Amino acid sequence: MKFARYGERGAEKPALVDNDGNLRDLSAHVADIAGDVLVNLATLKDIDVASLPIVEGNPRLGSCVGGTRKFICIGLNYADHAAESGLEVPPEPVIFAKFTSAICGPNDPIIIPRNSVKTDWEVELGFVIGKTAKYVSEEDAMDHVAGFCLINDVSEREFQAERAGQWVKGKSSDNFGPTGPWLVTPDEVGDFDNLGMWLEVNGERVQDGSSSTMVYRVPFLVSYLSQFFTLEPGDIVSTGTPPGVGLGFKPPRYLKVGDKVALGIDKLGTQNQVCVADV
Amino acid sequence: MKFARYGERGAEKPALVDNDGNLRDLSAHVADIAGDVLVNLATLKDIDVASLPIVEGNPRLGSCVGGTRKFICIGLNYADHAAESGLEVPPEPVIFAKFTSAICGPNDPIIIPRNSVKTDWEVELGFVIGKTAKYVSEEDAMDHVAGFCLINDVSEREFQAERAGQWVKGKSSDNFGPTGPWLVTPDEVGDFDNLGMWLEVNGERVQDGSSSTMVYRVPFLVSYLSQFFTLEPGDIVSTGTPPGVGLGFKPPRYLKVGDKVALGIDKLGTQNQVCVADV
Repeated sequence: MKFARYGERGAEKPALVDNDGNLRDLSAHVADIAGDVLVNLATLKDIDVASLPIVEGNPRLGSCVGGTRKFICIGLNYADHAAESGLEVPPEPVIFAKFTSAICGPNDPIIIPRNSVKTDWEVELGFVIGKTAKYVSEEDAMDHVAGFCLINDVSEREFQAERAGQWVKGKSSDNFGPTGPWLVTPDEVGDFDNLGMWLEVNGERVQDGSSSTMVYRVPFLVSYLSQFFTLEPGDIVSTGTPPGVGLGFKPPRYLKVGDKVALGIDKLGTQNQVCVADV
Repeated sequence: MKFARYGERGAEKPALVDNDGNLRDLSAHVADIAGDVLVNLATLKDIDVASLPIVEGNPRLGSCVGGTRKFICIGLNYADHAAESGLEVPPEPVIFAKFTSAICGPNDPIIIPRNSVKTDWEVELGFVIGKTAKYVSEEDAMDHVAGFCLINDVSEREFQAERAGQWVKGKSSDNFGPTGPWLVTPDEVGDFDNLGMWLEVNGERVQDGSSSTMVYRVPFLVSYLSQFFTLEPGDIVSTGTPPGVGLGFKPPRYLKVGDKVALGIDKLGTQNQVCVADV
């Protein structure tokens, strides 16, 4: 199943995406795609899809999950991306944070911060926690995953690496976390270790990778993270990016106002963003 | 004014602390000490305190603020603490994150993670955002601060510094963020640049400092942070710790099950925590 959230920011309504690609409103069944609803997504399978109202028009999409308390990112999780960043693959996962105020819809604009000169892109495979997880084993890990989604881990490289430390500073500007369009359940995704993923800037393909080259895989990450803190329904984990970010070009290339970014992952949909100034 | 939240975790009720130290229930006036209520805390001054019901007994206190989306920490913000950590004062503030799932009440136990051998303490002056802040000046900064509070920035040093990076890994374990007992409004705190702050382990004073030795001060921090992301009502900023953390002892000293931690800051109250195992 595919879920989405549509409507004005902060007032998104829950929806399901039917086999024809229509958005169908789920408000009569659940208040949001968030919290405890994520624990029991499978129970929504019994709904008669044809009975759900089709959402007319072309509404804004919000993040595909609401109520996120943790936005956890994994750094340097593709060997070839680590190499382009001039860094080694770490001996265990690097965890960093995006503040949740960065979360936005998949097609909301990328807002280039006022003092930014190095705003960059990163297509990433995200997953969303469905059931509380603490000290879980790798074997049981997938019981705690509600689904997968597409994420652009927008990053300001100067803020991240040249402004006195800790990456969160360059990872958390407003709208630096486009998430969605869909939350896709694991049964519908199938082999999540072999998903093509790409990103284009102004129509030029700059990232063209696959989750098959990910170093630390999803079940391991669920188990690993749960050793440090409790994972809660709605928490998002973004699992790192393949090569082709702006920082890796020689010379580096960064986003400017008016640039158009498009990205996608097999089975998880696409995002389209326009870069705007922060006025 | 002093505000507090009491009751079971996740179901805390709002309260005010009267001049005699009684907790008085505010539920008839506000739903929580959170969100938009923080913008207008001053309007609660008109309430007839004597009309509010006194909370009987000795209920658990929760974090003094609810609905926190960002828990922002400032690293190495006391020159003498930076020295004991073997690090320089940074040329601009180091920002790191605590995941908000770490937030707990001021007297909740410190839960030592299963695989921890280096759980440490840090008494810190915290402040809470009252009004949305983006690109604010230092002059206007205090208009955006709802109040101050006491925080123990509990830290696992091995997770933080020896486990492949980014401090958030060692800063976010469950109950690593005792916050409160009170949210104290700036007018009641007065000179926040000259507050005594202390921490004791099993009755021995290990930290004994003052906010007067803080490098980057509160108005500067509000302005600085707001250049990178929007600060929202309920966001907590913890401003760094003075010397005397376990890591700084020779040899280092860390918390073990059964240890008792007490800490306080002038005008902001005290916290008392017992260290327990994570079973």
